[in-house]
Amino acid sequence: MKKLINDPADVVKEALQGIAAAHSDRLRVLTEPNNIVRADSPVQGKVALVSGGGSGHEPMHGGFVGMGMLDAACPGEVFTSPTPDQMLAATQAVDGGAGVLHIVKNYTGDVLNFEMAADLARAEGIEVEAVVIDDDVAVKDSLYTAGRRGVGATVLAEKICGAAAEQRRPLAEVAELCRTVNANSRSMGMALTSCTVPAAGKPTFELGATEMEIGIGIHGEPGRRRMEVASAHDVVGLLATPIVEDLPFSAGDKVLAFVNSMGGTPLIELYVVYNELNHFLADRGIEISRNLIGPFITSLEMQGCSITLLKLDDELTALWDAPVNTPGLRWGA
Amino acid sequence: MKKLINDPADVVKEALQGIAAAHSDRLRVLTEPNNIVRADSPVQGKVALVSGGGSGHEPMHGGFVGMGMLDAACPGEVFTSPTPDQMLAATQAVDGGAGVLHIVKNYTGDVLNFEMAADLARAEGIEVEAVVIDDDVAVKDSLYTAGRRGVGATVLAEKICGAAAEQRRPLAEVAELCRTVNANSRSMGMALTSCTVPAAGKPTFELGATEMEIGIGIHGEPGRRRMEVASAHDVVGLLATPIVEDLPFSAGDKVLAFVNSMGGTPLIELYVVYNELNHFLADRGIEISRNLIGPFITSLEMQGCSITLLKLDDELTALWDAPVNTPGLRWGA
Repeated sequence: MKKLINDPADVVKEALQGIAAAHSDRLRVLTEPNNIVRADSPVQGKVALVSGGGSGHEPMHGGFVGMGMLDAACPGEVFTSPTPDQMLAATQAVDGGAGVLHIVKNYTGDVLNFEMAADLARAEGIEVEAVVIDDDVAVKDSLYTAGRRGVGATVLAEKICGAAAEQRRPLAEVAELCRTVNANSRSMGMALTSCTVPAAGKPTFELGATEMEIGIGIHGEPGRRRMEVASAHDVVGLLATPIVEDLPFSAGDKVLAFVNSMGGTPLIELYVVYNELNHFLADRGIEISRNLIGPFITSLEMQGCSITLLKLDDELTALWDAPVNTPGLRWGA
Repeated sequence: MKKLINDPADVVKEALQGIAAAHSDRLRVLTEPNNIVRADSPVQGKVALVSGGGSGHEPMHGGFVGMGMLDAACPGEVFTSPTPDQMLAATQAVDGGAGVLHIVKNYTGDVLNFEMAADLARAEGIEVEAVVIDDDVAVKDSLYTAGRRGVGATVLAEKICGAAAEQRRPLAEVAELCRTVNANSRSMGMALTSCTVPAAGKPTFELGATEMEIGIGIHGEPGRRRMEVASAHDVVGLLATPIVEDLPFSAGDKVLAFVNSMGGTPLIELYVVYNELNHFLADRGIEISRNLIGPFITSLEMQGCSITLLKLDDELTALWDAPVNTPGLRWGA
């Protein structure tokens, strides 16, 4: 296993120390239990956004803590759900009196633990709503999931709902917006190589020297099919066709197109993919009016990409464009 | 060769089409010859910054075109210098009457071609200054370089000089600032794996299953030593010690610490490296007052990292903090 780490058991702890040292202007890292919270939390009168999940998908979620996005992120060990007590502690730490929204990717452990944390927080008088993200069209059920997996739409929901919370919209409205983003998003991913969980020390799955897997999950969960490596043109067809057919997206739609690196695929390849996606959508009369290209929801060092499309309206577009200041996503007004 | 591409011969062309489609709000992509220029260029009365080099290091340089950074980037084929006529065309396209600064990484082809382009531009009455970046302490001379190679300091010089140009400082002053950034910066990189140039179709060099190379160049040029993979702690010692000793950096210095991914190393590992670097520097009384962590000057899908330290003063810090709006680096005031 070739990785820039020390003891595999310390990867998450030490990465959190690095995040704390690097970004103390925007966030604080708590320990026992581990949580990443906004430096200025709790923000009084603002709905607080909490997300979380296994580590190994950086910058998600800790890199999305800051003004205009998350108030807290609960990092589990690599590809392992955080615990209910972590989620409860995060919820308590960032509640500013206007309630807390849990944004939960649809993996069974995450969903159960966030449900338990929400119950505990409500028992303490904190108003909590939860929205489960399930945008991955690849498979109906998966290794760790009943129903569709939650993937790229999570990043978009955290940005858009974060902007709405900054406008001091009430909890019910921010939660409804989160459901809208999820309902308007579809994703699918693929892998050229496996990744290696540090504690396991060997690849999560085996792919032949000329094979790829279409529909892969962000923890290496099986996808739709394993096949010979194809051109970027054909890969985009294999990912974007089921995405477009599922919603369905149709001529005249404006979309946010998100081309994500699984971690080990460099930007030059993502731009080749984006170029193909742009042509694919233009051929169908679908206009890309916003885009996001880079490693935002990763699977350690896995090579591959995922595509997420979000159908936009004026409100979602304005919230996407609103200022954000996190380590992972940052722009001004 | 597993890559998300079509014909290897079309990678640069198609990536540029992707960049053009994605970022038309900030830049324009010219063809015959290929250049990436600011959407609003030429900016009248502003010193224009032009850089360039082989492709394969994305987001450098094309991803750094925009307000507060470069006016133009000249992309060569993968790991191949752009041509003098490209550089001349870029210089002509962005000259706003206040002169043009060429920021040149120290590789023989880049240096010779930028010199030729500068001569041609001057013959047309355009004022041109050139600064060669040579911050890599790994080796004295290299495969494509007389003297030290230019690496991470290039990103920092482009940001800082871009901010100075936005303030309408004169050419001589922006060029002097670029020399200061170079003089105050030192870098070194390492690789866990090779990369594969698309047109070559096989790895640039071979590394054993448990080997790493310390002092690697961004095109896979040989470094200082090949050795067994070590801990992140030891890797940081091997990179940061020669960096700190070379300038030298000493107790009381404030630095910008830049931890860069070679392309295939994910963010979770970079934060482990950053944590080690933070301790390494703190032990020596050196304070990190700014940081940059992520893939900014890459070597295709190579796994590994590089460290760059820039000694800061108040002026450099203020210019680093100034607003920037490029695809690769973006923040508000």
